[in-house]
Amino acid sequence: MSFPTPLRGVIPPVITPLTAAGEVDTASLRRLSEHLITAGVHGLFLLGSSGETAYLTDAQRLTALETAVDTAAGRVPVLAGVIDTTTARVLDRAADAVRAGADALVATAPFYTRTHKVEIADHFRRIRAGADLPLFAYDIPAAVHTKLPRDIVLDLASDGTLAGLKDSSGDEGSLRRLMPELRRLPNGFSVLTGSELTVDGALLAGADGVVPGLGNVDAHGYVRLYEAARAGDWAAARAEQDRLAALFSLTDAGDPALMGPSSSALGAFKAAAQLQGLIDCAATAAPQVPLDDAAVERVRGCLVTAGLL
Amino acid sequence: MSFPTPLRGVIPPVITPLTAAGEVDTASLRRLSEHLITAGVHGLFLLGSSGETAYLTDAQRLTALETAVDTAAGRVPVLAGVIDTTTARVLDRAADAVRAGADALVATAPFYTRTHKVEIADHFRRIRAGADLPLFAYDIPAAVHTKLPRDIVLDLASDGTLAGLKDSSGDEGSLRRLMPELRRLPNGFSVLTGSELTVDGALLAGADGVVPGLGNVDAHGYVRLYEAARAGDWAAARAEQDRLAALFSLTDAGDPALMGPSSSALGAFKAAAQLQGLIDCAATAAPQVPLDDAAVERVRGCLVTAGLL
Amino acid sequence: MSFPTPLRGVIPPVITPLTAAGEVDTASLRRLSEHLITAGVHGLFLLGSSGETAYLTDAQRLTALETAVDTAAGRVPVLAGVIDTTTARVLDRAADAVRAGADALVATAPFYTRTHKVEIADHFRRIRAGADLPLFAYDIPAAVHTKLPRDIVLDLASDGTLAGLKDSSGDEGSLRRLMPELRRLPNGFSVLTGSELTVDGALLAGADGVVPGLGNVDAHGYVRLYEAARAGDWAAARAEQDRLAALFSLTDAGDPALMGPSSSALGAFKAAAQLQGLIDCAATAAPQVPLDDAAVERVRGCLVTAGLL
Amino acid sequence: MSFPTPLRGVIPPVITPLTAAGEVDTASLRRLSEHLITAGVHGLFLLGSSGETAYLTDAQRLTALETAVDTAAGRVPVLAGVIDTTTARVLDRAADAVRAGADALVATAPFYTRTHKVEIADHFRRIRAGADLPLFAYDIPAAVHTKLPRDIVLDLASDGTLAGLKDSSGDEGSLRRLMPELRRLPNGFSVLTGSELTVDGALLAGADGVVPGLGNVDAHGYVRLYEAARAGDWAAARAEQDRLAALFSLTDAGDPALMGPSSSALGAFKAAAQLQGLIDCAATAAPQVPLDDAAVERVRGCLVTAGLL
Repeated sequence: MSFPTPLRGVIPPVITPLTAAGEVDTASLRRLSEHLITAGVHGLFLLGSSGETAYLTDAQRLTALETAVDTAAGRVPVLAGVIDTTTARVLDRAADAVRAGADALVATAPFYTRTHKVEIADHFRRIRAGADLPLFAYDIPAAVHTKLPRDIVLDLASDGTLAGLKDSSGDEGSLRRLMPELRRLPNGFSVLTGSELTVDGALLAGADGVVPGLGNVDAHGYVRLYEAARAGDWAAARAEQDRLAALFSLTDAGDPALMGPSSSALGAFKAAAQLQGLIDCAATAAPQVPLDDAAVERVRGCLVTAGLL
Repeated sequence: MSFPTPLRGVIPPVITPLTAAGEVDTASLRRLSEHLITAGVHGLFLLGSSGETAYLTDAQRLTALETAVDTAAGRVPVLAGVIDTTTARVLDRAADAVRAGADALVATAPFYTRTHKVEIADHFRRIRAGADLPLFAYDIPAAVHTKLPRDIVLDLASDGTLAGLKDSSGDEGSLRRLMPELRRLPNGFSVLTGSELTVDGALLAGADGVVPGLGNVDAHGYVRLYEAARAGDWAAARAEQDRLAALFSLTDAGDPALMGPSSSALGAFKAAAQLQGLIDCAATAAPQVPLDDAAVERVRGCLVTAGLL
Repeated sequence: MSFPTPLRGVIPPVITPLTAAGEVDTASLRRLSEHLITAGVHGLFLLGSSGETAYLTDAQRLTALETAVDTAAGRVPVLAGVIDTTTARVLDRAADAVRAGADALVATAPFYTRTHKVEIADHFRRIRAGADLPLFAYDIPAAVHTKLPRDIVLDLASDGTLAGLKDSSGDEGSLRRLMPELRRLPNGFSVLTGSELTVDGALLAGADGVVPGLGNVDAHGYVRLYEAARAGDWAAARAEQDRLAALFSLTDAGDPALMGPSSSALGAFKAAAQLQGLIDCAATAAPQVPLDDAAVERVRGCLVTAGLL
Repeated sequence: MSFPTPLRGVIPPVITPLTAAGEVDTASLRRLSEHLITAGVHGLFLLGSSGETAYLTDAQRLTALETAVDTAAGRVPVLAGVIDTTTARVLDRAADAVRAGADALVATAPFYTRTHKVEIADHFRRIRAGADLPLFAYDIPAAVHTKLPRDIVLDLASDGTLAGLKDSSGDEGSLRRLMPELRRLPNGFSVLTGSELTVDGALLAGADGVVPGLGNVDAHGYVRLYEAARAGDWAAARAEQDRLAALFSLTDAGDPALMGPSSSALGAFKAAAQLQGLIDCAATAAPQVPLDDAAVERVRGCLVTAGLL
């Protein structure tokens, strides 16, 4: 397939179903991917934070990516997270992604290391030069502990290094300052928000699409929200977003005395997918604390309230 | 005047004009306040971050507040920042604000200290009990280094401690989760965003108003944005926000080798007000580095581009 | 008295005893101060973090300081914290301290605001110029959220702005790089560590003294530690430090489900002082959560283990 | 060789020499390792932060580790960093290290992810269970953005999961509270400080050894410091530490307008090793900004001052 320029729409960061033994459950991943495509999503993003990429071995990452590419079969593009500490390691991940048939790559700034902004720019340029696929920058300070500077993003968009930005920074103000300048570029740069709770506002502001973790749980809702926004029906977009924001409370299902917010959210996405029959097993990767039965019941309650069960 | 419930609209955080000698320039503050009221703002917020409150002595704070109250003369409510480290000190500031005739108080969580969320809740309850004015919580983690927890805000809204929230956290997703619950309360709780770059999205999401530092520079723009949103004309609201986001680049006027982003922004607001004739002198309080001539020229350029000069 | 140059020895950051009603208990403060002086401390530091200065009104600060100055009666110097957000406000606090008879001032970098390093240097210079007392810089990033840059400290020491540094940054490596350069200065600059758990190492490295919060609980211990180090008996210094490090576990007395570490530590210092009969009431200032009975028993256990009860 | 229990002494985190083309320069690594062993170090730590491990591919890591193991030839133990985001990935790195013949493993807490303390403990237990080598915890909040909680370290030391701790947290106070409890354990737990500027104080406090990045530049200095401390000659230890703290200023060689502190420090260690003839090429891994000629001259100046050139 030719990669859309710019990429637009709902591109869920697909969770990676695991068996109870901790291996990638390819049958469940096929079923889930098929469900998402049928629901009308415009792409699949594999091996992002919601995909537990940081918990998967290279072999598991490859398996998950190949499975999604095979299932998508060219109907929607498959973006592959190539998450590793610095350039040379990311290029190894990118080589795997190319081999698996991904349509685009999504890379973060370096992490673990402390990196200067000049080095961050060089990092993306070397990745683009070393892997022949469209490259998205993944701005996720909660994970990498640096925010991509606006001027770096603009430079890398202008010179064609980046095909787009997945903005999970939560810094909507910074993005608002950046978007008008990005829209002025000739080459169809794609701005995707990863802030799944403020998609209506992001689309109003001119974002091209959204990468919502919660889209694993309610893909139809995000597709409706996107379509309403495209049609200029902002009241409908807002109502859908309000509904999805309420549904998002399932991420608080885990007992905070027993586990952190990240394990709670990832566990809840998987529990919700299992309760809806989209995957077989809700296990998350070690060493994450699993949701207990009471937490799963809270997830079920959220799904019932949202009309998903 | 009876205080609006909920408070709605554009409530600029008024800058505090200073003389070259560093004293409050009351004549300029009167002129600026009159200008803002004439432009159609719905309230004045004195002694916030844009008002350089952290740089003003108690005597200067009192002077500025009295001047604004006298100028407003009941036409719009005057909210007073009561910014100090912890409860007893805030109550001293609140007593000053009551004496000056403020219509409402705006207090942050404790700072300098490390404070538990139970203590933050107690802090606001003691302020409300100790000062007979409507109380707004000011959520500004960039200054106080804690984010107001959602459950605390909801508790304090439910029990009547708080009349509203000024949210300068930049965490739009968290606010989106909170707003539906706040709207369910019977008592007219007011949500004001301090994120001046995403006002269209915040109003779409249900915020009651905005406290824009940039409103000192272009009050008419924010009033237009607010009115467009109230009328449901989201395309117009977005266009106005885009224009204001571009204007916001004046905050980058200062040379980053010489000064920090905060001094640059406060200096630019004041330079822009002076260039428009709203105040006499653009001096900021010590020890802030002042804008140099080149920076002031950059501010002028932004105003010209925006059609304000 | 003529102020020691450099200031050396044990200078406890004196807690501020309060009555149950929340007022400064001057009788207890006299008793505690007398106890400390008798134990051999080399100065008193009033209105620091251990003194709950952020929780005290200006009037309460003045009362506490006057009481300590009167009790010291020139036997040891009294240093006064002048803790406020920025320069003009600190100068107001400094004027109070001068009036109360303090022998030196201790000021932090600006807080609440975001401040450039050039502004931090200017801040200290303006304080020194505006108040005719020796000035110590208080490096406490946990409270003010900036670390004093090494080059700024060195500049301000070299030009005579600062008489000394109270280093509560916990960054012993940075201090180790700074000390040889400070020792080269002709004017007797004083380096005091606020890291009460590593005093032996700090004195070995050349620090002049220590400002230990735990010195409110065991002043004799810190005096013995200091004297051992002065005598070059590092084995004895280390053994005393080990004992004091074990005693420090009283700061964990509070239940972390109910309160934060700061309230627990301040509450424990006061409970320990009360249990030893040094003050009448262990109340901490609002809105801090008080220690419950079980926590006070844990404090008592620590004192018994340390041979202090 | 049987692994020392506890491991004691100077264990430099060996830099990874690279060719100009970016490949591991095994000849230089052999020469450097031989130099360090001859200087009297007590172990080699490969693939730590100073070893640029985050910049090396898995293949490069394996090459570097095999080279060091072969050079050491059982004369000193070789510890291998197994640095990756979470458990399953670390176990893949551990399998490589076992294959290469490492004597012990050094692992951090999970990073990129947000991890609960219960999960951190489980992470180390799973690594220990999955790899049959002594395991050291590497506490490096600057890289992984969590501090290892004291109670977790104590639990993992008590149950035999951990053979030791490499503490690069810079939190000497926390370590001081922990060490007496660790010393009480029967099984010879090893505490190694990574804070190369305060080694005298750490050894005075009871640490077993040091992992100094600067040891790549002046191994003899750290061996002398360690031996002086073992002999109780604290004046000599302090003097040596002062000399090494002054030498450490070479890490500031890079122009801060052009590069960050991490690239400056790693570049300076390599430049200093090259200037001393220990390695052939001072190149650091991409995308780090290299030192320019002026910076290398500053490094040379530091070496001359320290008597190393």
